[in-house]
Amino acid sequence: MVDPRFFPFAGPFRLGELAEMTGATLAGAADPDRTIRDVAALDEAGPEHLSFLENRRYAADFRTSDAGACLVVAAFAEQAPKGMALLVTPLPRRNFARLSRAFHPEPPVEPGVHPSAVVHPDAVLAAGVSIAAGAVIEDGAVLAAGVRVGSNAVIGASVTVGEATEIGAGASLSHCDVGARCFIYPGARIGQPGFGFEMDREGPFKMPQLGRVIIEDDVEIGANSTVDRGAGPDTVIGRGTMIDNLVQIGHNVVVGRGCIIVAQVGISGSTKLGDHVMVGGQVGMAGHLDIGDGVQIMAQSGVTRSLPAGGAYGGAPAVPAREFRRQVAAVKRLGQRPGDETRGTENE
Amino acid sequence: MVDPRFFPFAGPFRLGELAEMTGATLAGAADPDRTIRDVAALDEAGPEHLSFLENRRYAADFRTSDAGACLVVAAFAEQAPKGMALLVTPLPRRNFARLSRAFHPEPPVEPGVHPSAVVHPDAVLAAGVSIAAGAVIEDGAVLAAGVRVGSNAVIGASVTVGEATEIGAGASLSHCDVGARCFIYPGARIGQPGFGFEMDREGPFKMPQLGRVIIEDDVEIGANSTVDRGAGPDTVIGRGTMIDNLVQIGHNVVVGRGCIIVAQVGISGSTKLGDHVMVGGQVGMAGHLDIGDGVQIMAQSGVTRSLPAGGAYGGAPAVPAREFRRQVAAVKRLGQRPGDETRGTENE
Amino acid sequence: MVDPRFFPFAGPFRLGELAEMTGATLAGAADPDRTIRDVAALDEAGPEHLSFLENRRYAADFRTSDAGACLVVAAFAEQAPKGMALLVTPLPRRNFARLSRAFHPEPPVEPGVHPSAVVHPDAVLAAGVSIAAGAVIEDGAVLAAGVRVGSNAVIGASVTVGEATEIGAGASLSHCDVGARCFIYPGARIGQPGFGFEMDREGPFKMPQLGRVIIEDDVEIGANSTVDRGAGPDTVIGRGTMIDNLVQIGHNVVVGRGCIIVAQVGISGSTKLGDHVMVGGQVGMAGHLDIGDGVQIMAQSGVTRSLPAGGAYGGAPAVPAREFRRQVAAVKRLGQRPGDETRGTENE
Repeated sequence: MVDPRFFPFAGPFRLGELAEMTGATLAGAADPDRTIRDVAALDEAGPEHLSFLENRRYAADFRTSDAGACLVVAAFAEQAPKGMALLVTPLPRRNFARLSRAFHPEPPVEPGVHPSAVVHPDAVLAAGVSIAAGAVIEDGAVLAAGVRVGSNAVIGASVTVGEATEIGAGASLSHCDVGARCFIYPGARIGQPGFGFEMDREGPFKMPQLGRVIIEDDVEIGANSTVDRGAGPDTVIGRGTMIDNLVQIGHNVVVGRGCIIVAQVGISGSTKLGDHVMVGGQVGMAGHLDIGDGVQIMAQSGVTRSLPAGGAYGGAPAVPAREFRRQVAAVKRLGQRPGDETRGTENE
Repeated sequence: MVDPRFFPFAGPFRLGELAEMTGATLAGAADPDRTIRDVAALDEAGPEHLSFLENRRYAADFRTSDAGACLVVAAFAEQAPKGMALLVTPLPRRNFARLSRAFHPEPPVEPGVHPSAVVHPDAVLAAGVSIAAGAVIEDGAVLAAGVRVGSNAVIGASVTVGEATEIGAGASLSHCDVGARCFIYPGARIGQPGFGFEMDREGPFKMPQLGRVIIEDDVEIGANSTVDRGAGPDTVIGRGTMIDNLVQIGHNVVVGRGCIIVAQVGISGSTKLGDHVMVGGQVGMAGHLDIGDGVQIMAQSGVTRSLPAGGAYGGAPAVPAREFRRQVAAVKRLGQRPGDETRGTENE
Repeated sequence: MVDPRFFPFAGPFRLGELAEMTGATLAGAADPDRTIRDVAALDEAGPEHLSFLENRRYAADFRTSDAGACLVVAAFAEQAPKGMALLVTPLPRRNFARLSRAFHPEPPVEPGVHPSAVVHPDAVLAAGVSIAAGAVIEDGAVLAAGVRVGSNAVIGASVTVGEATEIGAGASLSHCDVGARCFIYPGARIGQPGFGFEMDREGPFKMPQLGRVIIEDDVEIGANSTVDRGAGPDTVIGRGTMIDNLVQIGHNVVVGRGCIIVAQVGISGSTKLGDHVMVGGQVGMAGHLDIGDGVQIMAQSGVTRSLPAGGAYGGAPAVPAREFRRQVAAVKRLGQRPGDETRGTENE
């Protein structure tokens, strides 16, 4: 059940309105004037809630759900429990997302600068910017219309932030340009110097890190993730890319558009990802690689070579997914073989 | 040696007092009026220090220690060096912890709100709450008696925090209810939206994240760890669970009571852990799994399937620990085999 | 191209000056009075830029570069494109670093305490200290000359920070002494209690964490990394050690001098590293190990045993690198073997 302390309500809506908002077809016990007050998961919903079913995995929950209404594909409609109104649509989940936002719209940005925030006189704030308590906007930073900066976040000198982008509490940005409609989650660190430690025969020394971070539009950077600035070239995160929590992006990395990077991934310096690359959780990637468009990398893989477009890969070092599954199966057999030799080894 | 700048002293105590506080029996060269000034490890202790021995591994340190007194199980007592007073107890480590707190009690909470903190007028602060410099308490937050909020931490709108809970410096909380006697370490991020990126045939879209984080009593969340709020159901951390640093807890995850989750673990969305589950460092867990009570998972494992209660597992993908050890042994043999074929491969 | 918003320019310099600053020999089309305005990578440089070539990998970029001047080893000189001035030196990269700093010197520290910063009256600030907006310096902290504290960072009670050390935005320090010329990156967490959860037959309990973190001179701790304080002994990071982002250092860990620890490494409690140890990204190390001087550990390894000085190791559990490469080759063969049995398994 959605907690009204955290998510203000905009409903109720009539079933007919919900059908209209999604293009779904009313079916089952569906009275267009029936009132729906909120959204809920199938196993939590009651008669005044809207739920959805898209994944076969939850069909059992559907058959026993008390939800008053449910977004569902036509194929599941006949399994509906009695009394449940159906909103038949080919895209239940997407329309559930849409209606969830209708019931619980984002609270409007309250423009203004909290009196405890510190905005440098040479920073530039467009109309409608909202700066929360304790945030710091340094010299020369430029914030476009509708930007929201969370409590105690820090926007470094000369950083630019595009329209309607949100910066989470306690995040810090420096040496970067951030696009429009991005969300930098709490505690993310953008633009610090990369790990520019070099070694030659005279010993270690540091390379100055004179590049930036360029974050294109519609990007998300997860909580406590870190994106280092380039050493000379820039570090780039392409439009629409989604980066989860605790991800490390090294200097000079270029991530294409529409990539998905799951939590705790680490991408080493100067590696380039194409568009629509999907990287599973805890994957590690060596530096100076080229990863082609549409590559999919399984969780916990270790990528040590460049990968051509379009394939799926797994393992450490990563190999084609088909080959990785064979490796896993073969190693599994080795572990299960009940021979004397194996037993002896185990007792060592 | 304990540094008095950081840990104020409450001693000294007489040996007789220490025996009384722990129920230990005085033995060896033990004068009940002998004065002990502090605690120290066996290899650092001097004549005015109390140490302890529980693990056989440190028996050699015990035999050569200069500690004036030592908590020890009866079995080790006869190995004590001359002049060392013994406090014989079946639980040396636990009693060392207890006496360490007696010598170095937590400094009392100084109640009050630092003038630089920002407390929204609609936040509710119980008696004895302590808010450090630069902390931000947003609209409608409710802090119970004895809550401590560290410097520059952020307590988001409508968040509730239970009695005597401590929030570390720079941490941020939103969309959550935190129980009593918890410790949220510095930089932890609680309650941000989960990685609610979905894909259907029309492309990617975001699911609103309308759940909360519920943290029960006596929980610890480590430094810079991240706990995402639920998508609709809540993310829950059960009573007494201990989470180390840099851990990622995805949306809708339910962690039972008394679990131990070591540093850099990642738990994907909607996975459920029973009670007393132990998860080694850097483990990754796929989403939508059920992990039974008392399961133990070895460090760096990758858990891809649900696991019944009570077993021990290792490897990626994780298998029963016994089987994993066989796999390791078999792979080790493959690496050691000194045949021509292997050499040839290595030179490729 | 270096962005002047973020990196102020100190050039231009004449070629003759650059040669003098590095000891390089002018060669090729080199007029000592030719003016160079900036540094750039080979593939981005134009006639007014200085670049460098050290790694054979970039020789093709060199041959087609438009750079006006290039630091290069003698062996590559004859491949230079027409019109490129050469600065011949045995150490091009190191000298490129040096000249980069000449073109873009670190902005001078502006001493002073921002009016929004909170400095406890019993903190001690040496001359030339710079405290940015919203930073908090707690009771008894001691900051040496030239220390810089970033916006919203927190220096805890009684912490000492050595000369010219920089603390990044939003970082927090407690229970630690930090040496000179260190850089603690944004969001790093130093000195919180370690994961001191113990178990005996009466159940779980917590050990007080009464040690400190000692960070020697010239150390870097990456963004959002965490270094727990010792339980009784101290956690120590040796002189000149470089720690990347999102690294976890457990309590009582001792890291020697000049070590390199790449992103997302986790080192468990009480493990000791010698000097000049190199640890690849995402490595995990068990507790209570001794790792000898000069050991090199490949990325994603899992170190479960102590390792003697000087070797290279890989895998999980980690074995000598040579043996690990054999394991990888053997497992790769298992995955490629096109037998019926393998196919059957894959289809399971």
